[in-house]
Amino acid sequence: MGEETLSIGGGNGITVEEIQRYLKEKAKSVEARLKEYMERPAGIPETLREAMAYSLLAGGKRLRPVLTLATAEALGGDEEKALPFACAVEMIHTYSLIHDDLPAMDDDDFRRGTPTNHKIYGEAMAILAGDALLTRAFDVMAEGALDAELPRKTALTLIRECAVRAGAEGMVGGQVKDIQGEGREVSLEELQDIHRSKTGDLITGSVRIGAMVAGSGEDELQALTGYAERLGLAFQIQDDVLDVVGDHQKLGKPVGSDEVKNKSTYPSLLGLDSSRERIRSLVEEAKQLITAQERIRPARLLAIADYLTVRDK
Amino acid sequence: MGEETLSIGGGNGITVEEIQRYLKEKAKSVEARLKEYMERPAGIPETLREAMAYSLLAGGKRLRPVLTLATAEALGGDEEKALPFACAVEMIHTYSLIHDDLPAMDDDDFRRGTPTNHKIYGEAMAILAGDALLTRAFDVMAEGALDAELPRKTALTLIRECAVRAGAEGMVGGQVKDIQGEGREVSLEELQDIHRSKTGDLITGSVRIGAMVAGSGEDELQALTGYAERLGLAFQIQDDVLDVVGDHQKLGKPVGSDEVKNKSTYPSLLGLDSSRERIRSLVEEAKQLITAQERIRPARLLAIADYLTVRDK
Repeated sequence: MGEETLSIGGGNGITVEEIQRYLKEKAKSVEARLKEYMERPAGIPETLREAMAYSLLAGGKRLRPVLTLATAEALGGDEEKALPFACAVEMIHTYSLIHDDLPAMDDDDFRRGTPTNHKIYGEAMAILAGDALLTRAFDVMAEGALDAELPRKTALTLIRECAVRAGAEGMVGGQVKDIQGEGREVSLEELQDIHRSKTGDLITGSVRIGAMVAGSGEDELQALTGYAERLGLAFQIQDDVLDVVGDHQKLGKPVGSDEVKNKSTYPSLLGLDSSRERIRSLVEEAKQLITAQERIRPARLLAIADYLTVRDK
Repeated sequence: MGEETLSIGGGNGITVEEIQRYLKEKAKSVEARLKEYMERPAGIPETLREAMAYSLLAGGKRLRPVLTLATAEALGGDEEKALPFACAVEMIHTYSLIHDDLPAMDDDDFRRGTPTNHKIYGEAMAILAGDALLTRAFDVMAEGALDAELPRKTALTLIRECAVRAGAEGMVGGQVKDIQGEGREVSLEELQDIHRSKTGDLITGSVRIGAMVAGSGEDELQALTGYAERLGLAFQIQDDVLDVVGDHQKLGKPVGSDEVKNKSTYPSLLGLDSSRERIRSLVEEAKQLITAQERIRPARLLAIADYLTVRDK
């Protein structure tokens, strides 16, 4: 992790170990609940259930659901109420990975160090497992809203938020733009637009959903949205940087794959140093936005932002 | 259509022409609204929007959304309130067709007489257009529930209904069972189970959603569920029958395709005559169930049931 860990702790008073422990603990809550969701209901064909669970329970950082929980917590919200929404976001993220890995899309054989869904279950089942996870996410949200007795408008707005961030104007649209940018050099502006929708929208949605579950006011929601947008972009630039300088053992995927695919990335367009500089300034902006809000208890969100810039996987 | 038209009109007082006109008129309302949905919002990549609209606006019977509208109407509900839900169901049906037609699934080149989505836009875009339509369906429902000021519990239960019927326990699960039944003879019971989830669940969901939007009581909902289950099964048997005796011009797809694919069907397991007998008795049961309910104005639902048994496409 090197010298960069020194940049951690600028005012948030949380050590790297503490935030790592926190992230791990929240990821565990999410995983336990995801496992429960995969065990019920009866009536799912066994192979389909296995294919869904294979990718959903395959580990990973659980960044998105943890952001949902941490945001709810930062506004004094109840983790139990936020958990179904956190899980729904992770189901949507997982379905998008399954479909992105398909031969007709990125044609990837490995994901997080294990064979991709279609390599194990075949293409048809991988498509259907993705479809089923996406559909289930909305059931889980509606059920969660009923159980938590969320106000009508909050509940329905949350569901819309998730659908819009994940859909044609958001994540799915981003994947389309990404495909359309393949094999040619894209401008920095275009690259940013691709990332904003392909990965940024769902990250922003994760934070906003956590805020809404906790009954956020409009000012806090605006600030948290700005935080999430910057975090999402920083996270993506860091991904590109790690693809150049990372350790494939830790990443669970080959490094240098962007270069092999002749893909435009931040390092290829800006160089490594400027890319890292961009990450730092985005994180700084993100932190300032939420620190300025009185009703937000920002310590952990600040630490997460710092931590993401020094991660090595 | 032959002599079978004579069976129409047993007590419902609606002629074939009248119900055809009604079905066409309702399909038109649905199509107009679907077109509106496809025109907004901005921010959808143009090719993706085109691919979504290509399949969504390709015509077809619009059976499911029309059932949603007719059911709401049968309970004195407001068409304007039901319309977004009807459209959501059609988006889900369309996404399932796009994915089912993919080379990794049924590998079909034509649908409703026109090239399938992936033949025009390629596999990647077809997968993403399907994903986007499924996601959009939930946005449209949540938006519709907000606009119609549906009670909290009704709105969230509706969304769950749709997700459960369309998901792993329902339609997607049925597609999995269908794939697993390919290339071997399945029993009548197994065939019925496949159809109950693959096509039946969404048809049942369409009716139940229409009922819920109209504020249905529990007794009416039970009766309408029974009606829809029988209708869905009759519809599927009729599809199988038409695949043997139908006119490929009217159907917009080749006939005899089930036999070519060595697929077990009602006619192959029961014979044509018994299949037709089964359709008649299912429709009879369906009609009795709703006629017995005082709060349901059944005329059009009865006529739809009759009409489906004599359709030739």
